[in-house]
Parts: sequence; structure tokens; C-alpha cells
Amino acid sequence: MGASGYSGLELTKLLLHHPAVHIDRLFANTSAGRKVADVYPWLAGQIDKIYDEYSLDMACASDLLFLALPSGEAMNLVPELLQKGKKIIDLGGDFRLREASTYERYYHRPHKAADLLASAVYGLPEWNHDRIRTTSLLANPGCYPTSALLPLLPLLKEQLILDEGIVVNSLSGVSGAGRSASTDLSFVEVNESAKAYKVGQHQHIPEINETLQSIIKRPITVTFVPHLIPLNRGIYTSMYATLAKGISSDDIERAYRNSYGKSPFVRVSSSAIPELKNVVHTNFVDIGFRVDGAGNRLMVFSAIDNLLKGAAGQAVQNMNLMFGFDETEGLL
Amino acid sequence: MGASGYSGLELTKLLLHHPAVHIDRLFANTSAGRKVADVYPWLAGQIDKIYDEYSLDMACASDLLFLALPSGEAMNLVPELLQKGKKIIDLGGDFRLREASTYERYYHRPHKAADLLASAVYGLPEWNHDRIRTTSLLANPGCYPTSALLPLLPLLKEQLILDEGIVVNSLSGVSGAGRSASTDLSFVEVNESAKAYKVGQHQHIPEINETLQSIIKRPITVTFVPHLIPLNRGIYTSMYATLAKGISSDDIERAYRNSYGKSPFVRVSSSAIPELKNVVHTNFVDIGFRVDGAGNRLMVFSAIDNLLKGAAGQAVQNMNLMFGFDETEGLL
Amino acid sequence: MGASGYSGLELTKLLLHHPAVHIDRLFANTSAGRKVADVYPWLAGQIDKIYDEYSLDMACASDLLFLALPSGEAMNLVPELLQKGKKIIDLGGDFRLREASTYERYYHRPHKAADLLASAVYGLPEWNHDRIRTTSLLANPGCYPTSALLPLLPLLKEQLILDEGIVVNSLSGVSGAGRSASTDLSFVEVNESAKAYKVGQHQHIPEINETLQSIIKRPITVTFVPHLIPLNRGIYTSMYATLAKGISSDDIERAYRNSYGKSPFVRVSSSAIPELKNVVHTNFVDIGFRVDGAGNRLMVFSAIDNLLKGAAGQAVQNMNLMFGFDETEGLL
Amino acid sequence: MGASGYSGLELTKLLLHHPAVHIDRLFANTSAGRKVADVYPWLAGQIDKIYDEYSLDMACASDLLFLALPSGEAMNLVPELLQKGKKIIDLGGDFRLREASTYERYYHRPHKAADLLASAVYGLPEWNHDRIRTTSLLANPGCYPTSALLPLLPLLKEQLILDEGIVVNSLSGVSGAGRSASTDLSFVEVNESAKAYKVGQHQHIPEINETLQSIIKRPITVTFVPHLIPLNRGIYTSMYATLAKGISSDDIERAYRNSYGKSPFVRVSSSAIPELKNVVHTNFVDIGFRVDGAGNRLMVFSAIDNLLKGAAGQAVQNMNLMFGFDETEGLL
Repeated sequence: MGASGYSGLELTKLLLHHPAVHIDRLFANTSAGRKVADVYPWLAGQIDKIYDEYSLDMACASDLLFLALPSGEAMNLVPELLQKGKKIIDLGGDFRLREASTYERYYHRPHKAADLLASAVYGLPEWNHDRIRTTSLLANPGCYPTSALLPLLPLLKEQLILDEGIVVNSLSGVSGAGRSASTDLSFVEVNESAKAYKVGQHQHIPEINETLQSIIKRPITVTFVPHLIPLNRGIYTSMYATLAKGISSDDIERAYRNSYGKSPFVRVSSSAIPELKNVVHTNFVDIGFRVDGAGNRLMVFSAIDNLLKGAAGQAVQNMNLMFGFDETEGLL
Repeated sequence: MGASGYSGLELTKLLLHHPAVHIDRLFANTSAGRKVADVYPWLAGQIDKIYDEYSLDMACASDLLFLALPSGEAMNLVPELLQKGKKIIDLGGDFRLREASTYERYYHRPHKAADLLASAVYGLPEWNHDRIRTTSLLANPGCYPTSALLPLLPLLKEQLILDEGIVVNSLSGVSGAGRSASTDLSFVEVNESAKAYKVGQHQHIPEINETLQSIIKRPITVTFVPHLIPLNRGIYTSMYATLAKGISSDDIERAYRNSYGKSPFVRVSSSAIPELKNVVHTNFVDIGFRVDGAGNRLMVFSAIDNLLKGAAGQAVQNMNLMFGFDETEGLL
Repeated sequence: MGASGYSGLELTKLLLHHPAVHIDRLFANTSAGRKVADVYPWLAGQIDKIYDEYSLDMACASDLLFLALPSGEAMNLVPELLQKGKKIIDLGGDFRLREASTYERYYHRPHKAADLLASAVYGLPEWNHDRIRTTSLLANPGCYPTSALLPLLPLLKEQLILDEGIVVNSLSGVSGAGRSASTDLSFVEVNESAKAYKVGQHQHIPEINETLQSIIKRPITVTFVPHLIPLNRGIYTSMYATLAKGISSDDIERAYRNSYGKSPFVRVSSSAIPELKNVVHTNFVDIGFRVDGAGNRLMVFSAIDNLLKGAAGQAVQNMNLMFGFDETEGLL
Repeated sequence: MGASGYSGLELTKLLLHHPAVHIDRLFANTSAGRKVADVYPWLAGQIDKIYDEYSLDMACASDLLFLALPSGEAMNLVPELLQKGKKIIDLGGDFRLREASTYERYYHRPHKAADLLASAVYGLPEWNHDRIRTTSLLANPGCYPTSALLPLLPLLKEQLILDEGIVVNSLSGVSGAGRSASTDLSFVEVNESAKAYKVGQHQHIPEINETLQSIIKRPITVTFVPHLIPLNRGIYTSMYATLAKGISSDDIERAYRNSYGKSPFVRVSSSAIPELKNVVHTNFVDIGFRVDGAGNRLMVFSAIDNLLKGAAGQAVQNMNLMFGFDETEGLL
């Protein structure tokens, strides 16, 4: 559902070539009734389907539904789909937060399925592996949170950095804003410019903080600011923290090895600084870091493709776990 | 009028620093009532005006009105402004064609001031110098036609190329499409892509052909195709023609010198091929050419800034002529 | 060989996932001795090889060699490799022309293996299918020629357009210039600019003309001009021709269906105009066309990914034919 | 001197139209002997000079010399120029630091004119106004330091933020790296990517810290990380700090008004977040800020054109002060 947006498109491309998946229906709203290959001629010759208008009956013919809807729409549909015994991977934000009040504050609407918030599983495979395997309602993480949580969690878990004063400065390509008509996202306005936006108000602020707390079991509040830069795909996140006493570069490296030594999509380097071009069109997250000269400040950098590890790729990774496929199936 | 579009903005910048001009009012439609510096923070600290809603009375306080309106709007206002004795420079397309029927065919609406079409002067200063000085209704040329007419006119006038089979292949930056909310013009759709558009249907096709005929006094029909490429400003036009018998590179050079030897904004090179970066943010047109190996084909290239020589800059150049200022005043 | 350039990198990516291929060695020159994943961190976690310095012995361990070398280098190596019974796909220009004198004129050096020119097969699978299957020396077509030949050949073969006066106007992304240190190709010089280049001198001029003649069996000379535009990947080609008498849009469509009805990588549309974004990261060529109003001029447009259908993808397509694999293996 | 680099070019453009300046010579190294308009066709028709090879005699014919040289070259020339009584504005880094040992550590070479470091004046007009008026050796600030110092100085001076834990995250366009042949700066490598670089090693780290200490009179060490993003011009800097107890948004606003109420090129907004497009091609710095929800963290943002307020524009602003011209002359 929501198959004609950018995340939906990436998901379609991935699922088309996934050996264990058969795409039954592609639901879309404004594009309903149009041929997929007309809306996205890139897919011409590769898919021969029409975007369908959503119906519960049609949806129920599938084992799994991916929801890539504007925020606020998934919560209207999820309860009845769960009742029908369907599994759901929601790429939107409706089920990522634990508190309905926080949802209301950042998404500017009341939550209509608040009773499901507690049981939804936050789909960060590197940290919620076991719970993902068994859930029916998976909340696929936001792109910014993915880029920040993966680098920060090992350091906070092992208390290598102080909980206070963490800064998360993220740069995003424009596809992160979705596919819509808007003067602000027009080529001329975005090209040759850069800006911070939604400062102090972005819905990923509580998503990052709540998830840190839920995994680390301590309240942690980072300062997160997203920026828009002129490129299509990718998120580049720079993080700044104070090292705990006596912690060295080697400790950082060891922590990442402990956490991600067996994670197929996390590439950590103790020498190279990530670059966006190394991860676009992949499901990898690249992580690099530096301890500054004086020795008590840590700088960590991460890069992901916002549409893959930050959306559709991670959704497929989660599906693989939920259905017992190999975690990397269809992603390499 | 229409001061808050891209052409209107460039015009505002130019007029702000023009020594002989006082900007009385900036009329805008959707931005009416807003501070100019809020709509365009680039201008903060440089202008302290508010966009006004248009009124005939306010307009009549000025000697000259620039119209940078969506096509179809100028023809509603021009008759009464002329009646009030105002001078008008229309940056839109309403008064560029001679035939109301052609207007209707390419602009998809009937012309409401068809009786004025004959008296409007097409504002190509290098060719209509004298008529521009005395007109009250100046039709400022389109960006594509400017980039094609200036290189082609000297060659056709001196019959150095055949009238038949001329190809005009133009590339445009995205600001040429104006400032509007549209998925097609969103960053992600335009960036890393290129396309021909409005093939056979663009309203500049008759503008080029009619103007060639009107100046050369022979019917000439070129094939013109516009393309969109991912950059903000500029038009790059490549033209292909068959040389008349016995014509050499030197003849071409001489023809350009004859036509443009004293034109302050036309730079012709017999050796260098134009590049867009050499003209952006200027009112210059750069022209270069090559005769191919076999010797009977001519390739001509031109580059302009679509917002300056292709719109606001040429409008100021025309104003300078209409009011007896130096042709380059405010443009260097 | 030449595995660390842009074409070599794309080829590496394709071959890594090709079910019938085992990559034995990746030869490179300046990168010899370095880990592939250090030169291209994009490949980290996907390949664990080192770029080797070329040696004939090592090369001979493989059935097939891809050469992606700077022009002038392949002709030094090909004779001895053929003698050893190896098959060769040369992505460079050394074996694409039939005449050594033409090679010398456009490549500015004498040809050192001129006796092989006659037996090399020009690897345009849609036209040379049978000869490709049996050759040991395949000259993989240039990116511009691929984008021009595929749209023009059916029209010329069926004499739907006149042989004279054909114009080929091509736009290329910057990866087409290869990976090298050059002020001219630096970001600041290319971004926000556009230009024609090598006008009348590009080595693809004779490649297009010779191939047209060799397939159509009539001498045909088109006017071809390449342009550089600010994007990474892709070639967009606009072609202009005069229709033969009485030829309509339907005839054009039928000719394309005749020629490409069974070609898996050619997508022809009689309604849509191609856009670059629809083909990047694919091996497809998209073709569209329009007959102009007056009815005697034809405009044809094509789009390809210069690194795939214009280089590495077509090379794999040729390999598939040479080794009897399915033509699309590893390319969808 | 160094007139053919990007800063030199911008300086040339500004000085050409400065009413109180006559350009006597443009010295360049690799471009010596070439016409300015051949190296930069943008300037064709506007300047008729040739780049000269530097000679002390020729240089001494001018009252003022601008040096826009690669780092390490100015210190060879400045002593003798000062001895001849010339005034100097050095756009490079040779005279910006106070300590020769720091220079050696970050610029990787010994300083050859270390005795002049103490007397050189750091040309931040908003803070060193009086000393700038009387100096003969002006060290024009670096682009990153300009973007960070202007927003931070008022806050640190009035102790509205804590000295510890300040993070400075900067994004730069590619022209900041100068004009040179380098694969790393080629279009394909930079476009559609982003990266942090020179982490912990950039020469602007000590420039920021030393200048803060020299003006604030307390030792302050910020964490500064530069990033490269795909655009031509501009620096966007995001700063993060802890508010001193009881400090509110109003206090921040008041501090900026106190410091910059009369500064013609500093535009502070308490509501709008800066965007790069609002400052490119101007000498303005835009500053905006937000206090976060919890109330103890401050986020400050600034935007400048790296070639103007970050280089040539600020140099002209300094010249205006040194010679008693109006501070904004030639800059609006």
C-alpha cells in the first residue's frame, strides 16, 4: 500500500527480484488504475501490473502487507488487518513511538490505535532480532533514526560516551521528503542550497530518544537536527559526544565489533570516514569515527541510503527475519 | 506585476541598482501583502517593500510597467494601461506573435487584445533597435527564441545558410519553467535526468519562425526542440544548418561582425565553443560555430542566462532604449 | 583489465552477480596492489580481491578477458591473447573502426594491429547477433554510437528517412569522460554549466558513420555533436531527419517493431518521450519519436545509461551471446 | 597575486566595479601570459588584461596587494612588500594564527616569517574594526572560521553559553577547495555524495580556537568538523551549545543586536532558519537560532558565500576600512 511513492517504488524493485516473494497487489491512491510502468517507466518491461485501489478483501489474499503511506493513514487500517491474521510491515511513523501523547505532539493528530503501540516491534534488525522474528506488526524505523541509532547504541550500551550532550547532525537527500508537488522541494529551490529544517520539531527526535531509552534502559536525550542538501538519495549523519574517562579509539572499535561483528549490513571502519556514494543503492550502513586531539571528544559518522537501509531495504531485511528467510536475501 | 516569480525577482534585483530607476510598486498575486524580504530573504537588508495587490490607480503612478505574468493575463491589462498613456514591457508571451490564430493554437486560449498584436514591438534590441525606442508596448522575447534568433539571423539575412532543414536543439535550466509547485519539477525528478519536452508543441516554435520571417522577409521554418537539464539557470542552444555553396568559416565570422560588431551584449568567437558558465548572471549571449569536415554543414552554438538575456536583463536593455538611457546601464 | 575505471567498476558489479561467471582476476594499472574494496568502498563486504598487475600468464587462466583500457592500449595486448586462444571483449575504441587510417585520424596514433580490424565484430547485439556468437574479438560499441545507431538503423534500413541531413545531438553525463584528475571535469567547472565539446573531432563520429554504412550498405554521413551536462550517468540523444515521401508515424512505429520486437533491452514508445531517469542503472535503451506538424520532419529521442547499455551492460550482453547464455542473464 | 584561482576571480569581479579601485596588475602563476578573458571567458568584454608573472617592481606600483595564494607562498613575499611600504591583504592562511608552532602543526611546514604573526591583524571587520583601519598586514579570515566566529562570539562574550562542549558542524560547497585537478574533486566523485573530511586535522580548527581566545580572552576549544556537499558556493554551519542557566531566546536575540545592530553585512533572525540560497553571490552572513524544547540547548545556524563573505567579499570589506572608504562600497 502506498506503492507509488518513492519508498513504495524501491520496495517494488526489491520484491520483484526476491526469490521467495510473489507480489500480489500494488495498492496506490492517486495512481490507482494506472499501469505501474506508466507511472514509473523505469519499470517498463519488468512488471506488468496496475496500481489497485485498496480493498480489505484484496489485501487479505496476501500473507504480508507493506504499508508506505503518509503518516496518519496506517493506524486506520492496521487494526482490521491484524484481526484478519495478516502480518504488517509499516514503513511510516504511526507505530514507532511508545506514547500516544508523544505521537500527538509531534505528528499533530491523536493516535487512533494507541492500544497497539505497546505490541508493535521497532524493526531495527541489529538490535531487535528476536522480537522481529515473531511479531505481526513491525514498525520499520525512520531513515534519520536508523542512521543515528546504529552508531550510538553500542557506545551507550557499553557506556563509552556520556549520556549528556550528544549532538546528531544529519544531512538528507531530497527523496527523503517523499514524492509531492511543493515549491519548497522544486529543483531551483533545493539545488545550490542547503538548510536545517524542522529544528526542534522533527518527528524523528522522539523516535531516536525513545528508542535509545527502550534499548539502553536509561533516559537519554540527544540534540538532533536534520538538514536538506541537494542530492537525490542518502543520509549522512555526524554525531558528537564526550568520551567516558579513559576510553580510547580501540575501545570504540571493540564495541562496534561486539555489536556488529555478525551483522551483514553494518560496515565499521576505524580508519576511513564514510562517504555517501559508498552506500547509495545498497542496504549497508557505513560507520567511521575519530577521537579528537585533546582526547575526550568523539566524532562518529554514518552513511545510509535513505530509501534502502533507511526504508525499503530495511523493510525487506525485516521481512526476511519475520518469515525465516536468510537475512540478506534479495538485498545483495 | 508578477514581481514574485523568478523573472520578477531578477528584474527587481536589476532595477534596485539601476541609477535611473525608482521602483514604485511591486505587484504580486499570491504573495500580495507579504514583505518582499520574507518571500525572498536574499533581498533582506536591500529592499524594504511589500508586494502589493495590483490596482490600476497604483500602477498609473509609474511611467513604465514591467509585466512578468503567467501567459494569458497580460492581455487583460494592457489595453487600459496603454489608454492611460503608460509604457509597457511584457515579459510574457501575450504580445510576441503576430497572428491571433497562432496564439490560440499554441497558448490554447483565444487572444483578447488581438488588435494590439500588430503594433507591439518584438524587443530584440540587436535587430529592432529603432522601433523599440518609440514603442509603448514592448513584447520582450522568450528565452529560447533569444538564444536561437541571435545566432541565426545574421546567417539567414546574408543567405549564408539554406532556409530549409535548420535544426534548433535547446537545453534549459529549470528556472525557465517558472516558480511553481509541481512534481515534474521537483528536485528528485529533475536531478540526474534529462529529457526533451513539449516536442512539436512548444509556444516558442511559432515565436522563432514568425520572428525569422518578420525580420528576414522570407518564410522560414526551423525544427525546434527544448530539453530540460538539471541546472538552475541558462539556455544552451545548438543549431545545425546546411551552408550555402562556397561559404566558409570566414564568411560566417564576417557576417557576425557585420551584425554584432557594435552590440554590447553579443560575444562571438570563431574559435571557442560557448559554455553556459561563461554567461550565467550576465546579460551576454555567447556565440560560437564550426564548419564540419566535409565542409557543407554548419554547427552554431549559443549560451545565455535565461533569466537575464532571456528575460529580465533583456527587458532592462529594452527599457534603456525606450527611455534613452545608455543601452548597458544597470547591466554590467 | 582496466578494472578500476568507471566501466571496469560497473563490469565488476555485474559479473559479481552473474550466475555463470567466476571473476578470476581484476587487472588494474595505477591501482595495482590495492584492495578493490579500498579503491571502491562501495564494494566492501561484497568482494575480497586485490587489483593485480597484468600478466599474460594470469590472464590466460581465464576463458574471457574484458578490456576497459585507455584507447591505444588494447591493440598492444590483443594479438597475443588471441594467439593463446582467449576470447576478448574490448570496451575501448581500438577495434571499432574498419579503417586504420580513420583510426589514426581520430585517435591521433597509428594502429598497431590493423590486420585484426577486419575480423573484429562490432558488438551491437540487436544487429550483429549471429557474428557475435562466433567471434573471439568483440569490439564493444561506444556509448554515443549505441544511443544513435539503435534508433537510426531501422529507419535507414527501411528507407523511411532520407540519408542526407541527419543530425545527432547527444548529451552525456560526466562519467562518460572516465575517472581522471582534470580541472575541466572538476565539480565546480561542470556543475551549473553545459557545453558542446570536440565538435567535428570526436572519435565517435567515424564510429557512427562507418557502422551505419557497414550495416545499411550505403554511405551515410550524419552530423554528430556531443555535449557535457551536469549529471553522473546517462546519454540522451536527439536525432533530426527528413521523412521520405509519404511516411507516417505508423510506419516508424512498424519499423521499430520489426527490428526490435524481440529485443529484450530496446523499449520503443510511440507516445512517450524518453527521460534519462527511466534508464539509469539499467541495460535498456528507451526510444521515442514525433513527426512534426508540417509532416516531413522526424524527431527521434533515445536514452541509455552510458555505463551499462553504453559500456559494461552491453559487454555482458555480448558475453552472454558469445558463451550461449541467455541474452539477459545478469542484466535484469 | 594568485588572481586566477576562484578567490582571485571573485576579487577581480568585485574590484572591477569598485568605484575607488583601479586594478593595476593581475599576477598569476600557471596562467601567466594568458589573457584574463581566455582563462575566464565570463569576463570577456569586461576586462582587457593579461595575467602577469609576479615581480616585486610591478607589485610596488600599487598601494595595496591582495594575496590569494596557496598556503605557504605568502610568507615568502610579505616581508619585502611590507618593507617597501605596501599594504597587504592576505586571503590565505599564512598570517591568521598567532603561534608559529601551531602553524607548523596544521600546515605541515615551518613558518618563515614568524616575527610578523604578532602584528598581523585578523580581518573580521565586525570585531577588529579599529585595528583593521590602521594595519598594513591584514590576514583575511578563512571561510569556515568566518561562518563560526560571527555567530559564536556574541554568545561567548556575554557568557550566554558554556565554553565547553561547543560543536561546529560545517557544510561547504566545492569551490572552497580551490581550482585544481584532482580525482577527489571531480564531478562524478562529488555529485550525489557527501562526506566529512580532514576530521581533527583541518587548519581552520586552530584558527577558530585561537581567534575565540584572542577576542574573548578565555581559552575555548570547540569541536569543528567540515563536510563537503555537492554544490558550487556556500558554507552552512550548524552550531550546538549548552545555554548558561536562565538564558532565554530573548537574551540571545539581544546579544546579537548588541553586537551586530550596526553591522551592514550581518543579518540575524530570531524566527527564520538560514538557507544557503539566501546568501550566495552576496557578502551577507545570515544567522538564525533555536532553543530546544527542554530549554538548555542552543542551536545556531549560519550561512555565507564562501567566496564572498568567506574570502573576496570580506577582503574588499577590509580594504574599505583600511582605506577609509564606506564599509559597503562595491559590495551591494
